[in-house]
Amino acid sequence: MGSLKMERTTTGWAARDSTGILSPYTYTLRNTGPEDVYLKVAYCGICHTDIHQIKNDLGMSNYPMVPGHEVVGEVLEVGSSVTKFKVGDCVGVGLLVGCCRNCSPCNANIEQYCNKKIWSYNDVYSDGKPTQGGFSDALVVDQKFAVKIPEGMAPEQAAPLLCAGLTVYSPLSHFGLRKSGLKGAIVGLGGVGHMGVKIAKAMGHHMTVISSSDKKRVEAMEHLGADAYLMSSDEAQMKEAIDSLDYILDTVPVVHPLEPYLSLLKVDGRLILMGVIATPLQFVTPMVMLGRKSITGTFVGSMDEIGEMLDFCKEKGITSMIEMVHMDYVNKAIERLEKNDVRYKFVINVAGSKLKSLITT
Amino acid sequence: MGSLKMERTTTGWAARDSTGILSPYTYTLRNTGPEDVYLKVAYCGICHTDIHQIKNDLGMSNYPMVPGHEVVGEVLEVGSSVTKFKVGDCVGVGLLVGCCRNCSPCNANIEQYCNKKIWSYNDVYSDGKPTQGGFSDALVVDQKFAVKIPEGMAPEQAAPLLCAGLTVYSPLSHFGLRKSGLKGAIVGLGGVGHMGVKIAKAMGHHMTVISSSDKKRVEAMEHLGADAYLMSSDEAQMKEAIDSLDYILDTVPVVHPLEPYLSLLKVDGRLILMGVIATPLQFVTPMVMLGRKSITGTFVGSMDEIGEMLDFCKEKGITSMIEMVHMDYVNKAIERLEKNDVRYKFVINVAGSKLKSLITT
Repeated sequence: MGSLKMERTTTGWAARDSTGILSPYTYTLRNTGPEDVYLKVAYCGICHTDIHQIKNDLGMSNYPMVPGHEVVGEVLEVGSSVTKFKVGDCVGVGLLVGCCRNCSPCNANIEQYCNKKIWSYNDVYSDGKPTQGGFSDALVVDQKFAVKIPEGMAPEQAAPLLCAGLTVYSPLSHFGLRKSGLKGAIVGLGGVGHMGVKIAKAMGHHMTVISSSDKKRVEAMEHLGADAYLMSSDEAQMKEAIDSLDYILDTVPVVHPLEPYLSLLKVDGRLILMGVIATPLQFVTPMVMLGRKSITGTFVGSMDEIGEMLDFCKEKGITSMIEMVHMDYVNKAIERLEKNDVRYKFVINVAGSKLKSLITT
Repeated sequence: MGSLKMERTTTGWAARDSTGILSPYTYTLRNTGPEDVYLKVAYCGICHTDIHQIKNDLGMSNYPMVPGHEVVGEVLEVGSSVTKFKVGDCVGVGLLVGCCRNCSPCNANIEQYCNKKIWSYNDVYSDGKPTQGGFSDALVVDQKFAVKIPEGMAPEQAAPLLCAGLTVYSPLSHFGLRKSGLKGAIVGLGGVGHMGVKIAKAMGHHMTVISSSDKKRVEAMEHLGADAYLMSSDEAQMKEAIDSLDYILDTVPVVHPLEPYLSLLKVDGRLILMGVIATPLQFVTPMVMLGRKSITGTFVGSMDEIGEMLDFCKEKGITSMIEMVHMDYVNKAIERLEKNDVRYKFVINVAGSKLKSLITT
C-alpha cells in the first residue's frame, strides 16, 4: 500500500457531543491508497439515522463526528489499482465503506450483512482512524464502496437514493417483489416512505399509503401518485382492507402495534420493517401462522443493489423530493427533520457551502 | 346431492364441557354424498390442540365435542362421484374437512389458508351440522380431504404424521428448505418437535435440538439422531452458536423470548413458529433487519403436501414414536400429554377399543 500524495486536511461539520449541534471541524484524510478514490463532495442528504448518531441515541457515538451517508461527489484522484472510476466521474457513497471480504455475506455480495462492515462515519477504519461522513469538503473511499451516478441523473437527486431509495429498493428486489401487479403499502410517509411510493409505483404496483390521520391524503394521492389512502384509525376502512396486500413497507421508527398491519396482508404476505426500534414490537403467533405471513426487515442494500437501483431510477425517471440547503443551515434542518417538517429530504449543497471559508470567517 | 344410504349413528368419545373429560357419545353421521367416503376409524392420534379445544382454551368450543384430527381408517363405502378411493382403501383424514374452493388460497391448492375452511371437529359443516372428529367408530368425509396411506406404511404410524408430521414438513417444503446440507434446529421436543428432527434429518440437514435444560440430551442425540444439543440456559453455548443456523422450528406453545433464537440464525435465516400462543411475543427490529431474517409460521399443510409428506416418510422409512392406548385410557392420556409425559405421541387404537360395547357397559 503506497500513497500517491501526502495526507490532506479537509473541513467538515461535526457534532462534538450528544447535543448534536454541528460546527466546523478540520481533520486529516488518509492518503489515496491503491484501491481508493479521493472525492470532492458535491451534495449530501440528511437522514433520520444521522440524528440518532449525533445525539448518541444508540449509546455508541464517538466525537467529533462528521455525519452524512448519502454522498455524491466528483472524483479528483484515483489510486493505482482503481479500475471502476476515472478522474471527473460523478460517484456516490452510502452507509458503508468497508467489510471483511471473506465471510459468507461478503462472498455472496451482500456486504451490508458482514459482521465486520465499516460504517461511513462513527466507526473505525482498517487504518485505525475514525471514519467521517459526507458533511465535508472531501472524502477518501475504497472503490468497492463507491458507485457511478448514471449519466444524466442530477447529482442532488441521486444523493437521497443512496440510502432512502436503496432501503426500499433492496427488499422489493430481494424478496421477488420487483414485478408488476402487486398490491403494496407504505406505513410512514417520510424520507424513506416517499421513495417507497415512487419506486414501487415504478415497478407497477398498486400502492396504498397508510397513515394514522387524514393529514397526508392529498400529498400521498396527488403529489406522490399513490393509488389509495388508508387511515389506520378508521376501523371500518381497516376491516375492508383485510387480506388485500402482498407486502407492507413499515418505515415507522418508533414502537407501534404490528397486528393491524399483519391483518391487511394476504396469505404469504410480508411485513417488511425498516425502522430501527430498540423497544420490543409485539405480535401473536396465529396472526402469522394462519396466513403463512412473514415479519422481516432489511438493512440498506448491497453495492450491487445500489447500482441496480440507480439504473432503475434513471430508466423510470424517478426523482426524490428534496429541499436543498447550505451547510450553515444544517442545525436548523436537523431540528426540522426531527419534527418531520420537510418534504421529504434535506440535501446539503456541500460544494456550494464553501466550507473552508465558513471555518475562517 | 343424493344419498346412498340412510343416515347412520356412530359412537365417539366426546367432551361435554370445558372440564375436557371425554365420555361415550352417540350421534348421527350424514349420508354418504356423491363426493363422500364413509370410513371405519382404525387409529387416531392425540394432539396438544385437542386439549385446547376440549378445555375451551380459545373460547370457541361447542359441546358435545368429539376430538381427533389424526385419523386413519378403512373405506367402507364411496359416493357415486368418488374417484380417489375404493372400498377397502386405507386413508387418512387431518385437521380440515372443507374449504370454499373459490378463493385465492383454494385456487392455489393451499386450502389450509382458506378463510372458510372447515375444521374436522368443533366446526359447522356445509349441511349446518357440527363436525365431529376421529375419536369415534366412523366418519363421513369429502374425498378431497382424505388421503391414501401409502402401501406398506403401518396405519398407526401414519396417524401422527397427518398433523405433527405435516406441520414440520410443510414449512420445510414451502420455504425451499427440502434440500440437503442445511443447518436447522428444533426448539421444544414434543410430538411436533420429534417429527421435526426425524423429517429434517431425512432431508439431509444437520439438526440441533435446543432445550432449556440438559434433560433431553440423551433422548435427542441417541434416540432421535440429532447432531447437536444446545442448552439455551448456557450463555457460552448460545454465544458460540450465533449466526450458525439456516432455520429454527420453534414448537414452544407458551410465551417465550425470541431474541436468543433470532441471534442463532444466519443472514436470511428463518424463525418458523408453530405454537399457537395468544400472549404476544416480542422482538426488537434490529435483530431482524441486520440479518434480513424472517419471523414466520405456517399452519398444518395442504392436502397436496400431506400426500408428498406421506410418500417422503415412506421412502425414507420415517416412523413416529408412539404409545398406543385404548379409548378407555383417553382421559388419562390427555392428562399425561398436558405434562408432556409421553414419548412422543399417543395413538388411540380406535377399532380395537370396541366403542359400541363401551357405551353399553
